[in-house]
Amino acid sequence: MSKVHNFSAGPGILPLEVLKESSEACINFDNMNLSLLEISHRSKNYVAVMDEARALVKELFEVGDEYEVLFLGGGASMQFAMVPYNLLTDKGYAAYLNTGVWASKAIKESKIIGNTKVIASSEDKNFSYIPKGYEIPNDADYFHITSNNTIYGTQLKSFPKCEVPLVCDMSSDLFSRKVNAKDFTLIYAGAQKNIGPAGSTMVMVKKDALGKTGRKMLSMLDYQVHIKGESMYNTPPVFPVYVTMLTLRWLKKNGGIAWIERLNQEKADLLYNEIDRNSLFYGTTAKEDRSNMNVCFLPTKTELEAEFDKLWKSANIDGIRGHRDVGGYRASIYNAMPIESVKVLVDVMKDFESKFV
Amino acid sequence: MSKVHNFSAGPGILPLEVLKESSEACINFDNMNLSLLEISHRSKNYVAVMDEARALVKELFEVGDEYEVLFLGGGASMQFAMVPYNLLTDKGYAAYLNTGVWASKAIKESKIIGNTKVIASSEDKNFSYIPKGYEIPNDADYFHITSNNTIYGTQLKSFPKCEVPLVCDMSSDLFSRKVNAKDFTLIYAGAQKNIGPAGSTMVMVKKDALGKTGRKMLSMLDYQVHIKGESMYNTPPVFPVYVTMLTLRWLKKNGGIAWIERLNQEKADLLYNEIDRNSLFYGTTAKEDRSNMNVCFLPTKTELEAEFDKLWKSANIDGIRGHRDVGGYRASIYNAMPIESVKVLVDVMKDFESKFV
Repeated sequence: MSKVHNFSAGPGILPLEVLKESSEACINFDNMNLSLLEISHRSKNYVAVMDEARALVKELFEVGDEYEVLFLGGGASMQFAMVPYNLLTDKGYAAYLNTGVWASKAIKESKIIGNTKVIASSEDKNFSYIPKGYEIPNDADYFHITSNNTIYGTQLKSFPKCEVPLVCDMSSDLFSRKVNAKDFTLIYAGAQKNIGPAGSTMVMVKKDALGKTGRKMLSMLDYQVHIKGESMYNTPPVFPVYVTMLTLRWLKKNGGIAWIERLNQEKADLLYNEIDRNSLFYGTTAKEDRSNMNVCFLPTKTELEAEFDKLWKSANIDGIRGHRDVGGYRASIYNAMPIESVKVLVDVMKDFESKFV
Repeated sequence: MSKVHNFSAGPGILPLEVLKESSEACINFDNMNLSLLEISHRSKNYVAVMDEARALVKELFEVGDEYEVLFLGGGASMQFAMVPYNLLTDKGYAAYLNTGVWASKAIKESKIIGNTKVIASSEDKNFSYIPKGYEIPNDADYFHITSNNTIYGTQLKSFPKCEVPLVCDMSSDLFSRKVNAKDFTLIYAGAQKNIGPAGSTMVMVKKDALGKTGRKMLSMLDYQVHIKGESMYNTPPVFPVYVTMLTLRWLKKNGGIAWIERLNQEKADLLYNEIDRNSLFYGTTAKEDRSNMNVCFLPTKTELEAEFDKLWKSANIDGIRGHRDVGGYRASIYNAMPIESVKVLVDVMKDFESKFV
């Protein structure tokens, strides 16, 4: 029974040792003779898990106590609402960069809460590039960006400097590369693409940005309530946070951000080089905006698609169907994806060309 | 290594076979050679899990297609907000029964959204009984009750008949006994007390009650959005829903609600009889309102408490410390608690009396 090469766009691949440890915790967590699925989140063993997960985020981001880290339920989609709910004032407005479906959804929620302006968009070319040269207004309540766009395979290669609070949805490339976290007021990410399983969302927020809207707030949507409760205002998603903690621990142990950034670059180079070299494929995004997490490519001869499908399936590859908005193929090569699996895919692409050209 | 007798109030005990199957799914789910933690929630194997979980709720509740079932993140605390957000109109008001801390929290959120009246409360006696003889107004938008109060060990033994939509937080006694689900417009429950692990909340709602507030709604707080998305508007809490599905499957396979209600009654009788018989303990709640899920009791001689603690600890019992609002002891005997564990506790109580009286 050989392991499948899992190129799923998300929920995505996790390190094998994390999966094993998670499996064990379902039976006997922390030598308590109890399953992690049936213990109190207030037990000292679990409080230690939550504390470690929160501390690891701050350590990997190299930030101090001006930031707080939360792990919340509801997914990044809940953050689309919570960000404006917590930061957008009655008289102010929010500024957004529209780089795809997920950014559009964030914009939609912000508009329900208050004034919202889209500063730049790449919708004109089906989000196949990242807008550049736009001006960020200096009177907005915040500026919201999406660092990586899973569907289209685009990624912001640098982050805008701006005078207003910078908010970023990093769901699909969190901790995949070095970022200067102190340039951000708020960073959030659904765990399930790069740092854990579905069911838990990481929020890191600068405390002094909160409490300024004057809005009377529902408790569960109020970051300050969750901060006060040390990310346990109510029962947290116990198991998903545990698996996330293990994944962050794995990242740190193996060399942290510097290590993973190098590895991710190597994997991305390998795959993009093959796409550019291979006459049967082409990339779908502007080269300078190519994502190191989600590699999208189309076949030059669509009539051969079924043949290529046979080849990758027989190589035990899974999850590389492109999103319906782009078509073709998408290989998601998140942190936990070993370079060996990328090599298997590249070999299949070469094999395909040698057979049909 | 013997299993601990887990009387934790929540997250609470789960069936051993569910824990084993969950553990296996972390490595190889559904013979996919992939972990459940790293597969797409849109894969057919996982869609089948979500469908089965939703169908099992309807089957166990014996309701038809006028109801929809959702599994959402955020916990019951999020439902405290979503219920009024979806049901409370601008000109109307919500009616609540206050039977404890959790009911009070639900009331607090409702008040943020609109007019809210508390119809009856047992706060005068630290919520040690269930209010009776109150009148439910027939012009309220809905009437909200909490069926079981974990902290105090009280339970509604029958449900009020009312003309307005009845909404119930069943977090701590869902599927522990027969209820006439068709009398309710909305039932919700955090999974982690009786039907699964933390991280997923069950909502069952009558479709025709929705869409009447005229409120412009945030997508993630809108039941209709989640219904349209078949409980996958966004990435659901994949693993928690799976474990919940397994627990519901276990319940059905073993005889369903009729079986578990009988077993739960037997366990509760065993324990309450001992509390009433044993000169070193007394119950804390009105007898007619005693919960069959959370059994609260205090020592008659507090100076002997440390001695009792030694006894139950040496019997491998865990999680029976009372909540700080009540003190003493609380034995939570949820569905998955075997009667053998209750017998162990009763034996320890008898042993304690024989040693110190």
